[in-house]
Amino acid sequence: MLPGCGKQPGRTNGLDKGMIQMSDNSFWNQLKWTEDGLIPAIIQDVHTGRVVMMAWMNRASLEKTLETRRTWFWSRSRKKFWMKGESSGHVQVVKDVAFDCDGDVLLMQVEQTGAACHEGFRSCFFRSVNSDGSDFFETEERLETPEAIYGKK
Amino acid sequence: MLPGCGKQPGRTNGLDKGMIQMSDNSFWNQLKWTEDGLIPAIIQDVHTGRVVMMAWMNRASLEKTLETRRTWFWSRSRKKFWMKGESSGHVQVVKDVAFDCDGDVLLMQVEQTGAACHEGFRSCFFRSVNSDGSDFFETEERLETPEAIYGKK
Repeated sequence: MLPGCGKQPGRTNGLDKGMIQMSDNSFWNQLKWTEDGLIPAIIQDVHTGRVVMMAWMNRASLEKTLETRRTWFWSRSRKKFWMKGESSGHVQVVKDVAFDCDGDVLLMQVEQTGAACHEGFRSCFFRSVNSDGSDFFETEERLETPEAIYGKK
Repeated sequence: MLPGCGKQPGRTNGLDKGMIQMSDNSFWNQLKWTEDGLIPAIIQDVHTGRVVMMAWMNRASLEKTLETRRTWFWSRSRKKFWMKGESSGHVQVVKDVAFDCDGDVLLMQVEQTGAACHEGFRSCFFRSVNSDGSDFFETEERLETPEAIYGKK
């Protein structure tokens, strides 16, 4: 029997009543979650190769990400689901989801709209350490101010 | 006064007696560590843009990484320092160290020798999920067998 066969769709987890049952198949069995039920997801711009951010997913947000092809995360500080771009409009369209040899990190290729960083930079990694490790400098230009991004609505 | 000025070099932390004092300067003040004193480090091939792995660093391993320009990590399972390539020879020469807007993730550009993955793939992210999220497939060719890598010594 193929993984997941014989399962009824429509498992509810508080997120989406139409969600596909994916509990027993082989992809999900590869993943290891933290004690808090989370896994880090590295987000990379599929066109430029720029790593734009890393955030955490729980199982429901990963299911939602695969279902909708938009990135959904779990905010540890706010304890809530959020879709990247829900406030800013800077959504990420997911083109590929990879996972590492230990099954405890995800790497997603996305088409990024606008600035990925809430501070208005293309990437959250807009600062690098200088050569002796004592200080840092900005490596990207700011595309937009946070006020311009979040004042839009 | 420049960050770190007036400090004596040679702070010992059990790793390297010649380590530079970097406690009070501005780069280090940007970083946030987990309760266990760790920070995730995403490792990207500077030439190809391929994300090859993610692993955890503590403060001492990050200091050692900046000092030696080789990647040093903290193994949570083995509770020990390790230098990438110490067994395999597949070292990573660090060309850039960036950190994200929240200061809780590092992104390092490296020159990677050979396979980054202990399973013999160029990247640890050698598997991707298929389109309906039910299964996965390999996206890279294996460069070497683990036996060839770790049997070399």
